[in-house]
Amino acid sequence: MKRSNRLVVLTDFFLENPRKHIQLPYFVTICETTKSSISEDLDIINEVFQNQGMGYLQRSTGAGGGVKYIPAFSRENSMQFIEELRKKLEDPARILPGGYLYMSDLLGDPRTVREIGRVFASAFSKVKIDVIVTVATKGIPLAYAVASFLNVPVVIARRDPKVTEGSSVSINYVSGSSRKIQTMVLPKRSLEEGANVCIIDDFMKAGGTITGMINLLAEFDARVQAIGVLAEADDEEEERVINNYTSLVKITNVDIRHNKIEIQSGNYVENHTDS
Amino acid sequence: MKRSNRLVVLTDFFLENPRKHIQLPYFVTICETTKSSISEDLDIINEVFQNQGMGYLQRSTGAGGGVKYIPAFSRENSMQFIEELRKKLEDPARILPGGYLYMSDLLGDPRTVREIGRVFASAFSKVKIDVIVTVATKGIPLAYAVASFLNVPVVIARRDPKVTEGSSVSINYVSGSSRKIQTMVLPKRSLEEGANVCIIDDFMKAGGTITGMINLLAEFDARVQAIGVLAEADDEEEERVINNYTSLVKITNVDIRHNKIEIQSGNYVENHTDS
Repeated sequence: MKRSNRLVVLTDFFLENPRKHIQLPYFVTICETTKSSISEDLDIINEVFQNQGMGYLQRSTGAGGGVKYIPAFSRENSMQFIEELRKKLEDPARILPGGYLYMSDLLGDPRTVREIGRVFASAFSKVKIDVIVTVATKGIPLAYAVASFLNVPVVIARRDPKVTEGSSVSINYVSGSSRKIQTMVLPKRSLEEGANVCIIDDFMKAGGTITGMINLLAEFDARVQAIGVLAEADDEEEERVINNYTSLVKITNVDIRHNKIEIQSGNYVENHTDS
Repeated sequence: MKRSNRLVVLTDFFLENPRKHIQLPYFVTICETTKSSISEDLDIINEVFQNQGMGYLQRSTGAGGGVKYIPAFSRENSMQFIEELRKKLEDPARILPGGYLYMSDLLGDPRTVREIGRVFASAFSKVKIDVIVTVATKGIPLAYAVASFLNVPVVIARRDPKVTEGSSVSINYVSGSSRKIQTMVLPKRSLEEGANVCIIDDFMKAGGTITGMINLLAEFDARVQAIGVLAEADDEEEERVINNYTSLVKITNVDIRHNKIEIQSGNYVENHTDS
């Protein structure tokens, strides 16, 4: 295979298989070439990936050595995306009765969702994560987007146990926004004991749902290594129970009377320096 | 930018932006090169995409002309994937009480989910689709995977209306498996009138849930152009109410006594010739 064709094949392979360790002989075979040619190809791809702020190829030598694509948005790319998101969310047409914010259009756009996943995966790039956990429903697409870049599975906690998932563990928790006691369920089979978990959700106010997830995960002896929420909102009545989280945007004011929304960038911006 | 670098940049661009129409001057600018060089690059990429069974670049000439990447798995790639899926599902350890099949591990794996999306997107490659609709919860990741290849948004019908989505339209339907009357809700704002819809779900038995979705979509004057279900199961007691659908696998027998599962390939295999 010619270099130009190999570059297309290899680029596609890395983008479809982030964080997958590959030994060079595999590429030598599929590209019908030599190890030194593959090595030069990888240098080119690594250079472009870095220049574009898309991450880098991690090479390792010795027996079992090889290469792995680590997707990591540059801070600049992440900041630009968060800023665009922030502006879109400030559109007053998003205000719903009760001061809620309509976000379903953004969460329904696969490209936006994928970019949110890329930003979180970049922020948590150096954290040990075995599995992404979210709770139905709106966090699900975000969880998959993060998982696809980190190359780990997704486990979904539900508010209603389903017969088709076997035996399960459940807990009760108090949801911050509705102040109701709710149930959260995770199938027993879904999580290994001691797993390193990243929690992803779309929205956090007082943090009741995330606290519920943490408590539920404790039943599996899981280690919560990272928490990512797309949007956080101030809760004046209640102090936040969760501190160690990463948010992309912060809803600081929804003024129904003056039809105005104020959105700031989330704590991602302060907490994450260049990755 | 050198050709080798351009090939990496362009390949990345197409994979991240399927079905997006781009005029060549855009690439000329970001790659700092000439139109004829870009044109040659596109020929190389198109050739590799086709050889790998990943789809093709669709070129158009004249004013406003440009290029679009159409992801389309070759029939061979799709068949191979369905066969692997079929074998994984036949594992007797998947049998749950009541004769249900544990699939959450496969639906929790982002790579498997993405491939399922790719197969459906390839099957519906020539159908006019504006939006993917699914119902919470398990169909959601599949819906996003299909949507990401078709470059269209996802709309999620819920079984419980949420206050954060504004006014909504709801219908009642009879779920085939539980025989209970259930409610399905779609926010009014989520779907334009007359939209061309593709319904995606993980599982279909008698087809009650899908019928519910069709009835709900009728309230929006939507046109259901395609229906894709990952797994269908025979329902001996009830005749299927939906006929025009595409399934990847078919659960033909779950024998609890002999601890045996029989999975056949779905109707995709008969219905879809090479794309």
